[in-house]
Amino acid sequence: MSRTVYVNGAYVPEEDAKISVFDRGFLFADGVYEVTSVLGGKLIDFEGHAKRLERSLSELDMPAPCTMDELLEIHRELVRANGIDEGLVYLQVTRGAADRDFAYPVDAAPSLVLFTQSKPGLAANPVAEKGISVISIEDQRWGRRDIKTVQLLYPSMGKMMAKAAGADDAWMVEDGAVTEGTSNNAYIVKGNTIVTRHLGNEILHGITRAAVLRMAQEAQMQVEERSFTLEEAATADEAFVTSASTFVMPVVSLDGAQIGTGKPGPVAARLREIYLEESLAKAI
Amino acid sequence: MSRTVYVNGAYVPEEDAKISVFDRGFLFADGVYEVTSVLGGKLIDFEGHAKRLERSLSELDMPAPCTMDELLEIHRELVRANGIDEGLVYLQVTRGAADRDFAYPVDAAPSLVLFTQSKPGLAANPVAEKGISVISIEDQRWGRRDIKTVQLLYPSMGKMMAKAAGADDAWMVEDGAVTEGTSNNAYIVKGNTIVTRHLGNEILHGITRAAVLRMAQEAQMQVEERSFTLEEAATADEAFVTSASTFVMPVVSLDGAQIGTGKPGPVAARLREIYLEESLAKAI
Repeated sequence: MSRTVYVNGAYVPEEDAKISVFDRGFLFADGVYEVTSVLGGKLIDFEGHAKRLERSLSELDMPAPCTMDELLEIHRELVRANGIDEGLVYLQVTRGAADRDFAYPVDAAPSLVLFTQSKPGLAANPVAEKGISVISIEDQRWGRRDIKTVQLLYPSMGKMMAKAAGADDAWMVEDGAVTEGTSNNAYIVKGNTIVTRHLGNEILHGITRAAVLRMAQEAQMQVEERSFTLEEAATADEAFVTSASTFVMPVVSLDGAQIGTGKPGPVAARLREIYLEESLAKAI
Repeated sequence: MSRTVYVNGAYVPEEDAKISVFDRGFLFADGVYEVTSVLGGKLIDFEGHAKRLERSLSELDMPAPCTMDELLEIHRELVRANGIDEGLVYLQVTRGAADRDFAYPVDAAPSLVLFTQSKPGLAANPVAEKGISVISIEDQRWGRRDIKTVQLLYPSMGKMMAKAAGADDAWMVEDGAVTEGTSNNAYIVKGNTIVTRHLGNEILHGITRAAVLRMAQEAQMQVEERSFTLEEAATADEAFVTSASTFVMPVVSLDGAQIGTGKPGPVAARLREIYLEESLAKAI
């Protein structure tokens, strides 16, 4: 069955979902994106994603294609049209189509594309029961990872390096410290303390990260936002990652060596439970 | 008048030149490109660009969409169809369209897009008579600049920073040394010696750079391939950049201060002359 996709004002079958080859998203990676999860047919933390989108656009002097209320309506229409119960809505804004020039065009209208992916079993993901394995790789990305751009080639390469090593994902390392996973924020747990990289230009300011840290503090867990090394990770009690589409996902091995017991730890399990429960309650 | 554009096997009017929103060039910047100049209706150093394209594809484990001979035919057909006397042919290969996933798709066919830009007066560019001004900016790009990917957002931002500062372009600086310009290689001249950054992952391996260095040596000029600092550039006798579409372009000011006499120097002028003469003679 063909999905319905949104492209610049029109709802079209996915086969017809096309953009100009002159779109700057295609020619210059001059675009930003968001991924919002859908559970029970409702959007998880849409407001957080909308706010981050506004920040990404602002950092790049890129005009918004529509209001955030209109964006919400498009999200809902796609979820309805495609009958999404569990899955996600992908959204991309680019600076639009113009004849190729490094300088930004003065009169291009921004492009807006949204599509859905159905992911039955997203909340009750069996992978969370056994956790994932990661390898460490050098962080070769550009310097503004706080802007959620489509410059995702290196994270893609990292995912392939992980696959080649028989692992599920990769943690990126810069100047001796872990920055984040290829498409998620990274955490370690030592005793009752959760450690995750502080915010800055070096990592994405995860929407799920913000929610999980708030919930951890509400649950009386200690949170330290600071850099951590691979050595610290190797000797941690447990580890996990967070992202909009995996929520809280335990990490049970690093570079082939098990972390803690080699099984999902209690902190990650508890945070996943709290996150899903609270997010579902607030989904719109 | 509408240009004829090549998209995945078809020659179409530019209004109809579209690719799937699921193309990984659009979603992940998972694509590479080349720009070949056209002078007198002929292609300048096509072979150099074809070889570099093959290297870019190989570095990314990306399949080639066709043979290099077929690529040459497409270049020639577009030059003919669009009546290009002076201008360029832009070529982009991506990993193709597939449902969104960081991991590379197993069965996607690579996408191939080519279009032309007419640039009358490209060889006799009056800008080369007075030179351009550059500012210095931090190099925030990813670590594999030797692969010619479409991850061009930072160079675009750099061009806008230059514009905002009233300059023509920006030179990027990393660890105290100049890497290159936003879309060109950077050179300084001191006495009879031309200095330009050595090859590595930090800069693009310019096709024009290789040709110009060879010609400089044939003309008995000294060439040093090594890093240089902004301080060296500020006190150089002259400076210039090279690229496929600007050939050899003098740089006459850096961060608002003139370089040398503040006018194009004899080395850059001579190299531009030699490069254009030899390239035209070998154009195909």
